[in-house]
Amino acid sequence: MSAPGVSARQARAGIVVTGTEVLSGRVSDRNGPWLAERLRELGVDLAHTAIVGDRPGDMEAALRFMAEQGVGLILTSGGLGPTADDLTAEVVGRFQGREMVVDPALEERIAEIVRPLARRWPNLDQDAIRAANRKQATIPAGSAVLQPVGTAPGLVVPPADPNGGPTVVVLPGPPRELQPMWQEAAGSDALRAAISGARVYRQSTLRLFGIPESEIAETLRVAEREGVELGALEITTCLKRGEIEIVTRYEPGAQSAYEAFEALVERRHADTLFSRDGSTVDEQVAQLLRGSHPPLTIATGESCTGGLVAARLTERAGASDYVKGGIMAYSNDAKVAVAGVAGELIEAHGAVSEEVARALADGARDRLDAEVGVGVTGVAGPGGGTPEKPVGLVWLSVVVGDYEPLTRSVNLPGGRSDVRDRATTVAMHLIRRALTTRLAGGSAAAGGSARSSAGATPG
Amino acid sequence: MSAPGVSARQARAGIVVTGTEVLSGRVSDRNGPWLAERLRELGVDLAHTAIVGDRPGDMEAALRFMAEQGVGLILTSGGLGPTADDLTAEVVGRFQGREMVVDPALEERIAEIVRPLARRWPNLDQDAIRAANRKQATIPAGSAVLQPVGTAPGLVVPPADPNGGPTVVVLPGPPRELQPMWQEAAGSDALRAAISGARVYRQSTLRLFGIPESEIAETLRVAEREGVELGALEITTCLKRGEIEIVTRYEPGAQSAYEAFEALVERRHADTLFSRDGSTVDEQVAQLLRGSHPPLTIATGESCTGGLVAARLTERAGASDYVKGGIMAYSNDAKVAVAGVAGELIEAHGAVSEEVARALADGARDRLDAEVGVGVTGVAGPGGGTPEKPVGLVWLSVVVGDYEPLTRSVNLPGGRSDVRDRATTVAMHLIRRALTTRLAGGSAAAGGSARSSAGATPG
Repeated sequence: MSAPGVSARQARAGIVVTGTEVLSGRVSDRNGPWLAERLRELGVDLAHTAIVGDRPGDMEAALRFMAEQGVGLILTSGGLGPTADDLTAEVVGRFQGREMVVDPALEERIAEIVRPLARRWPNLDQDAIRAANRKQATIPAGSAVLQPVGTAPGLVVPPADPNGGPTVVVLPGPPRELQPMWQEAAGSDALRAAISGARVYRQSTLRLFGIPESEIAETLRVAEREGVELGALEITTCLKRGEIEIVTRYEPGAQSAYEAFEALVERRHADTLFSRDGSTVDEQVAQLLRGSHPPLTIATGESCTGGLVAARLTERAGASDYVKGGIMAYSNDAKVAVAGVAGELIEAHGAVSEEVARALADGARDRLDAEVGVGVTGVAGPGGGTPEKPVGLVWLSVVVGDYEPLTRSVNLPGGRSDVRDRATTVAMHLIRRALTTRLAGGSAAAGGSARSSAGATPG
Repeated sequence: MSAPGVSARQARAGIVVTGTEVLSGRVSDRNGPWLAERLRELGVDLAHTAIVGDRPGDMEAALRFMAEQGVGLILTSGGLGPTADDLTAEVVGRFQGREMVVDPALEERIAEIVRPLARRWPNLDQDAIRAANRKQATIPAGSAVLQPVGTAPGLVVPPADPNGGPTVVVLPGPPRELQPMWQEAAGSDALRAAISGARVYRQSTLRLFGIPESEIAETLRVAEREGVELGALEITTCLKRGEIEIVTRYEPGAQSAYEAFEALVERRHADTLFSRDGSTVDEQVAQLLRGSHPPLTIATGESCTGGLVAARLTERAGASDYVKGGIMAYSNDAKVAVAGVAGELIEAHGAVSEEVARALADGARDRLDAEVGVGVTGVAGPGGGTPEKPVGLVWLSVVVGDYEPLTRSVNLPGGRSDVRDRATTVAMHLIRRALTTRLAGGSAAAGGSARSSAGATPG
C-alpha cells in the first residue's frame, strides 16, 4: 500500500510530557503511562517518552528528536493552563510551521465554562479571567480543536507541509481532563490519518508471585533449547511490587509460538503462576468474593499496613458489595479495645506475632460480622526492630469461615513504605490463596496443607 | 574558569529511564523523579528525561539526543538484570566507545551475594545462576564499578575520548537498589569531574490550598506591575492533588527579588497560603500533634476513603507516637456496630451526611480513646449518586477534645480514585485547620468561627 519507510514511520509514536514540576520530580507523571496503554490499544508502537520542563527550547528539541526518529504521531501533555509558563500550544504551532490565531468561538466556550467557577469565588479579578480565556483560545491556525473538559482545549495539529513530519496531538496536563479528551482525539480524522499504517499486535500477560527473576531468564533459555520460536515474540519481564509480570507482544501469525511459550511457563512455574489472562490479584480476589453464592464479605484488622489493605480492597467500584470494613489497630490499646485481641496474647508473644495476626483476623471478622477476616501485623520501621523481630518482619493471617486460618510470616526488604506496600501485596495473595483452597471445598486438613505450601513461597 | 560553552555543558544533565514495562505504562517510573531531586541538590540543571524500551537502537538514540543537547552527565536506570532484554551496560559501552570485559572480582562478589538466595530456593539451576552472574559482571572497560545493592552493580562510564561527550552513570532499576547506590555514585571522582561547573541555586516552595490556578497567574501579573524582578526568578506553578505549589529557583543574588515575590503572595493569598517553607500538610499535621504537650493522639472513622486517611497518617516514621488507629466502616452495619454511629442518624439523614460525619469522628475518638477524631463519609462513585447527593459529595468532620467539631462538605470532581484521593487531602487540611484554631486557645465560639471560614474555602 505505501512504501516501507512511510509505513514504519506511521506505525510509531512518541509522547512528550511537559512541565517543570514533572521533570523536577515534584509531581509523578500519570499521563505518559496512560497514553502508552491507549497507543497500544490502537496498535501504534511507542518509541520514546520524553519529559521536558517549561522551557520552549527544550520542548522544541524533544519534538525534533521524535520527528528524527521517524514517528508519525506525537502526543503532548501539559502546558495548556492560563499561566505564562504554559507554552505548549505556541511551541507546537511554531514546530508545525503554523501561525497562532485567536479562535473566537473557542474563547466564548471557555468563558461559558469559567462563569460558574467565577461565581464560586466572587472576588476574582475579571480582567485576569478574560486574559486567561484569551490565552487558552489562542491556537495554531488549521488545528482541530478538542473540546475542553476543564478550561483548556486540546488540539490536533498536522504539519503545515502535508509531507512534513508527524501530527502533534496537544492534550492538557490534569489526568481527569486528558483522559476524557483522548476519546475525542482518537476519533479525529487527523489522528486516524497519522496512524493509518498501524499494525495489529496481540499482547498477552502472565503474572507470577514468589520466584526470583533469574528463574524466568532460565525458562527463556530452556524455551530456546526446546525450539520455541522466540524470534516471533517480543517478551519483556518485569519485577513489580514483588510480582513478576511477563508481557509478550506478537503478530497474529505467531499465536502458536506464544502458546508453546505459555505452556512451558505453566509447566515450569505451576505453583507461582497465578494469572494467565493478565488479571491482577486484586481482580481475582474481587471475583472470588463476589462470585461466591451468596457473595462472601470481608473485613480487615491491620497494624503495620495502617489501612492500606482496606484501601486496596475498596479501590474497585462495587467494593461495598463485599467489603464490610476494617479496623486499623495501630496501638496495642486499640488492638485490645477495638479489634478484640486478648491483652495476654500481646504480652506473651508481642504485637508482631503469629498469634496476634490470627487474633486480628478473627477480631475483624467477628466485630464486622464478615465471612473472611484478614490480620496483618509487622515492623514497618525505620525504628522498632530487634534481632528477633527485625524491620520487615510481617505476620499475616486470613481466616475464611470456620476453616483453619492460613497464616504466614515474611521478611520484606526495603524502607518503611516498601515494607508497608509489599505487605499489602502479600496480604492480597494470601487472601487469594485462602479463598482458592477453601472455596475448592478444602477442609481443615486441606487448610493445613495450603498453609505449609504458602509458607514455602518466599515473599 | 572555563569557556562558557563548556560550563553550560557541565551544568546540565539528562536522565534515561529504560524498560519496556516503564515505557508501555505497566510500571510507573519512580527513578526519574527521585534522580531529578538528587541532581537539584547537586546544583545540576536537568534538561530532559527520556523513557525508552528495551531496544538497543532506541536507547542509543536517546543517549545521542542527550549528548547533542550538550549535557555533561547522563544518568540511566534499569536494564542491568540477568535476562537477555537487560542491555544497558552493553549499549552504554558502545556509546562511550569502550569494549565489554568480564570483571572477575565483580563476578565473585555477585556469586557471594547470590549464594544465600540460592539456599532459599534450593532447586534453582546452577548453570542459570552462573550465566546470570557472568552477564552482570560484564562491563565496559575503564568503568568505575558501584557495588551491588541487589545483585546488579552500577557503573560510572566516562567517554573513551576525554573530550568526547557526557559521562554516563548506569544505575539499576529497582528503586531500593538505585537509591542507596546513588550515594556512592555521587561521591565518585568521575561524576564529580563531569559536574564540576555546576552552579548553586536556591529553591523555595510555597503551597496554597483552596484557590484556582488562574489567581496565581494574576498575582504574577501584579508582581510585574509592582516592579518585582521576576526575570531573576524561575517560577513554576502546579496544581497537585487540589493544592497549588509555587516553586521558585534563583541564584543567591536574587534573594531580595524572591522575598518581594513571597511577600506579595502572602499579602494576596493570606487565607489559602498554608506553607512558606515547603513543608507539606502531612508534615504540619504530624508536627501539630507531636508538638503538643503532651502529644495529642488521633483516630479516624472512614467510609468512602476506605482507609486512605489512616494510611496517610501512618505513612511517616514515628506515627505510632500519635496515631491510635482507625475504623473503616464501609457498610452501615459497621458504622453502627464498630464506629458507634446511631442507626437512627443514618436512617434520618443518610450515611452521607453532616450528622454521620460528626458521629464517625466522635465514634473513632471515643472507641480508640484518642484526643482527635476524624470522620469522612461520601459518594466515591461510580454508582450510588443521587440528584441530592451526587458522586463526589463528601462530608468531613474533625473533633478536637471538647471543642465544637469542624465540619464541612465538598463536591469533588473526577472518578472514583480522584474522589477518594482528593477527599483524603481535604481531610488532612481540615485536621490541620482544626488543630491550628483549637491549639491557638480557641473556645467553642472560636470553633464556630473557624467552621464558617473553612466552609468558605472550596475544595
